Amino acid sequence: MDAMSLDPKIAARLKRNADGLVAAVAQQYDTGEVLMLAWMNDEALHRTLTTGRATYWSRSRGEFWVKGDTSGHVQHVKSVALDCDGDTVLVKVDQVGAACHTGERTCFDADQLETAIG
Amino acid sequence: MDAMSLDPKIAARLKRNADGLVAAVAQQYDTGEVLMLAWMNDEALHRTLTTGRATYWSRSRGEFWVKGDTSGHVQHVKSVALDCDGDTVLVKVDQVGAACHTGERTCFDADQLETAIG
Repeated sequence: MDAMSLDPKIAARLKRNADGLVAAVAQQYDTGEVLMLAWMNDEALHRTLTTGRATYWSRSRGEFWVKGDTSGHVQHVKSVALDCDGDTVLVKVDQVGAACHTGERTCFDADQLETAIG
Repeated sequence: MDAMSLDPKIAARLKRNADGLVAAVAQQYDTGEVLMLAWMNDEALHRTLTTGRATYWSRSRGEFWVKGDTSGHVQHVKSVALDCDGDTVLVKVDQVGAACHTGERTCFDADQLETAIG
């Protein structure tokens, strides 16, 4: 296994979408805040597991996105779990500063939808 | 606006994928556990916002999936938020029983991946 390749035992369990990606939910490890949803290919997952820095695949830019490299808003990886059908990972992180590019703490802070309940 | 149509002001903010879906992260509202990731089309989101029951679009079955209708493992909706780029909703729920079809509490409980850290 070369330095940039995902453990084949993990790779065999992934169910990638048509673009070769799995969804990644980033969660603040201690408060439980859901920070953002992004995407990973095999190498991004490998880097996330081995470098301690949450690393995604940017669909818009078509390149690896080491969270915080530009903004300083690094995500230090605490744990990673694969879901039951292999198409989503839950990445528990320690988020430095704002997770969202808008400056909000999470990407879900700005647009609460009205519900019929409560 | 008919009974089954999503508020056009919300619909206008959605950035749907090629299948007309947005991702939905379900989170237990009090403990913060991330329960599962599923998908919603406009009508599933409308039903989620108006009925109090988390309702998804099943990509495998090609039909609406009112979580718990078969299993009894209902998700009572507490709040719904749209993310900054309009392609993901965070649905805070009160989960009855197991969220995962395997019987685990969450879909992320069974497959912790080894990391180089800690």
